[in-house]
Amino acid sequence: MSKIGWQGVLPSLDRASIVPLYRQIYESLRESILTGTLPESTRLPPERALAERLDVNRSTIVHAYRELSSDGLIEQRVGSGSRVALLLRGQPERAASVPWWVTLPPWRVGEFPMILGELAAKQEAGKLSFVQGVAPSEPSPMAELAQSFARVGKDERFVLSYGDSEGYEPLRQAIADRMTMRGAKTQARDIIILTGSTQGIMIVAQSLAEPGDEIIVEVPSYPGALQIFQICGLRAIPVPVDEDGMRVDHIEAILRTRRPRFIYTMPSLHNPTNVTMNADRRERLVTLAKRAGIPIIEDDPYGELAITTAPPLVGMAPDYVVYLSTFSKTIAPSLRVGWLSAPRTILDRLLMRKQAYDMATSLYVQAAVTDYLERAYDAHVGVLRTELYARRRLADKAISEYWPKSIRVSPAGGGFYLWANTPREVRARPLLDAAERFGASFLFGEAFFANSGGDHHFRLALTAVARDEITEGIRRIGDGITALRAGS
Amino acid sequence: MSKIGWQGVLPSLDRASIVPLYRQIYESLRESILTGTLPESTRLPPERALAERLDVNRSTIVHAYRELSSDGLIEQRVGSGSRVALLLRGQPERAASVPWWVTLPPWRVGEFPMILGELAAKQEAGKLSFVQGVAPSEPSPMAELAQSFARVGKDERFVLSYGDSEGYEPLRQAIADRMTMRGAKTQARDIIILTGSTQGIMIVAQSLAEPGDEIIVEVPSYPGALQIFQICGLRAIPVPVDEDGMRVDHIEAILRTRRPRFIYTMPSLHNPTNVTMNADRRERLVTLAKRAGIPIIEDDPYGELAITTAPPLVGMAPDYVVYLSTFSKTIAPSLRVGWLSAPRTILDRLLMRKQAYDMATSLYVQAAVTDYLERAYDAHVGVLRTELYARRRLADKAISEYWPKSIRVSPAGGGFYLWANTPREVRARPLLDAAERFGASFLFGEAFFANSGGDHHFRLALTAVARDEITEGIRRIGDGITALRAGS
Repeated sequence: MSKIGWQGVLPSLDRASIVPLYRQIYESLRESILTGTLPESTRLPPERALAERLDVNRSTIVHAYRELSSDGLIEQRVGSGSRVALLLRGQPERAASVPWWVTLPPWRVGEFPMILGELAAKQEAGKLSFVQGVAPSEPSPMAELAQSFARVGKDERFVLSYGDSEGYEPLRQAIADRMTMRGAKTQARDIIILTGSTQGIMIVAQSLAEPGDEIIVEVPSYPGALQIFQICGLRAIPVPVDEDGMRVDHIEAILRTRRPRFIYTMPSLHNPTNVTMNADRRERLVTLAKRAGIPIIEDDPYGELAITTAPPLVGMAPDYVVYLSTFSKTIAPSLRVGWLSAPRTILDRLLMRKQAYDMATSLYVQAAVTDYLERAYDAHVGVLRTELYARRRLADKAISEYWPKSIRVSPAGGGFYLWANTPREVRARPLLDAAERFGASFLFGEAFFANSGGDHHFRLALTAVARDEITEGIRRIGDGITALRAGS
Repeated sequence: MSKIGWQGVLPSLDRASIVPLYRQIYESLRESILTGTLPESTRLPPERALAERLDVNRSTIVHAYRELSSDGLIEQRVGSGSRVALLLRGQPERAASVPWWVTLPPWRVGEFPMILGELAAKQEAGKLSFVQGVAPSEPSPMAELAQSFARVGKDERFVLSYGDSEGYEPLRQAIADRMTMRGAKTQARDIIILTGSTQGIMIVAQSLAEPGDEIIVEVPSYPGALQIFQICGLRAIPVPVDEDGMRVDHIEAILRTRRPRFIYTMPSLHNPTNVTMNADRRERLVTLAKRAGIPIIEDDPYGELAITTAPPLVGMAPDYVVYLSTFSKTIAPSLRVGWLSAPRTILDRLLMRKQAYDMATSLYVQAAVTDYLERAYDAHVGVLRTELYARRRLADKAISEYWPKSIRVSPAGGGFYLWANTPREVRARPLLDAAERFGASFLFGEAFFANSGGDHHFRLALTAVARDEITEGIRRIGDGITALRAGS
């Protein structure tokens, strides 16, 4: 087997990435084949040899080769190994002899492939999983919610209709009223109902920017948003978050030389740090955005759960803020009902894209949520807010008992998340492996970092387990830390 | 007032377009201002003068100027008229003195702005509206559906969880089993649950093509799809539909010189013509797609309602077809539950985008649909199919009684729609005006044509009124035809 030329095409692996190794190898070889760096008929190294060279399991190479083979890019024969397939035969790239799925537009997988799928996979019986950002099951909205669905389900107008793309008018009005009470004067016509606030992030990313454009994001930030920006080809300029919120002075420095399309921020109970931006920072951020003529995307899924007198940013500068929120965190994630409010100058543009994504959000569910808002929502949110504080107190107590002092956690107070910072010798990914052996899991920090970093951070969703499991889960993670430091 | 230079920037209006005239004027002037063709401080013609010159109502100009003014592009002063604002001051285009919403990426409004919003607006009390493509209210799925929601609403796993982005496994399995029974062998893992099949069209348009790429579409075709392709910057190569389906010979001719990214077709109970592609055409289409290496997007919302032995295209060439369908037409549109099946080579790519659009389709609703499928779906679809045939027979009878012979309608048989072709002297848009005066409405043909045409066609959704209103509605449209021909 000739080794000539292989050095140049050997995949270089990023072992810290959450992209699986087999996928990195597959993507790299695929590119080499399609660009002709690996010409037709080139013999690929045997699986075992490549595995040794790259220091990975043989099964990783088997998996990568199998994918290439199913794409029609290589031919595998028992006994004679794998070769680059006879694909192009000197014809233009998109000739019929190339399988059509090989010539598709570039796929911006980046560093965030299927991140939520990976998270879901971490749920296992017997394990205390602090992974998913779901509301606690107590207080439960279910009994009242079922009543709302039952009422609505009798009404043809809700069940047998698409409804308008902008959403159900009484729901928009109820949301506008609540936003106004929180200090952001809003009318029903400023609001578009969304299928979850994720949809709003995608709408904004595609409506307000183009591939290649720069945007400003917090580090750390919500992985779902980072994934969307990646898919849309946007380039993230990272700005750190401290205990008072986003570092506005960094933004100021960036704006001296660059023209990002927007600033994406989660100012209240920020995911993952749980920080709520203070009033002074809010004021400075909004002033800066106005002066520079750059809109702010205010992602506020947890805002109603924060105990703060600071109004949403949108209340301070309605012409400069697209506001996003959702009932996923305050009622139930399965509803997939969120909303945006936006300046009227761009509302049509956003609505057109909402319509293209899914026509309209389920009117059945929208009407049920409207009914729930009238009857049960405020009481539920009140109890939920108290529950979140109680959970955090339990967690803080357990941490002081079971974790070394060198693990620092984000400032206390409400919210879903606890963000931990580990000392130099404890990296989050091996810590997760260790904690899983003791039956607990969490989300390691890298997922929250736009470009790189995060390997000394991890996030616990304190809401994802029962309240009386919090102490035990934190104890198990503490056992993981001890084991990792002991080198076992 | 100087008129120098105005000739070059006078908006040219397309009076046949469904883009409102004020919007055309706004867009045209906006571009002239932003490109500098109309320099800063240029005085705009008085509203009345421009209205006369363009032969439009003065209120149209008032509306357009008001929009420009709210964008900050012109300044309006009582007594001294309107001028282009002092925007740029010699600075680069994105300087802070320009409102940020004026410098956004181009908005591909095209010819299909808010088309469904426009349709919704046509619903009025007392009017028999054949506009919206919704299932009839009889047979009603509501009682059984409410039971399904009630069962599911008691189960925390469905209500308090996001679920996986690919969808609820038992629902995927149930769909795969039904597709297999219809002649398209499918497994659960080939399927992604969507928030309505519209979402699938958008996913395909953004995943399989890039702005500027060409695609093949039927003319006429579903306006929602045409709107999505437009927003995505895809260029439609139109292929006609006759009584046997899409003209595959046209596709063959096109492929001799062009490389479209995909072929979008609705082969069963096509919207709007109600045509079902015959077996020979299906065979030829699939063969052609394979030979040329071009995927087919099979949009099949009505397939289960067709009485045909022809299997879906995806059953004939699973590696070349992305299949889309929905429960909007067979159960209820408010569910927003559809699905796609796709070759495994591209499934991850599509799933990643689904996840970016809205994370996951409501698990609450998915679980309810799964329950409904087990208990009630087949019986409901059977009755619905019969109902559609009954409605069409009523319509045909009324048409033979109340419409002139010169109006031709598409071949009979099931489905939601009746597609009519008017003689030379009867254009669809004035006919709609006439019919509305008699208290009936429909959708005129232009919305269904990718580039131009359709002004001698209109569509009736026979499902959108009560069964016993069909005859009366058709009589009213007949009165409209008579009035239009009499020139009244």
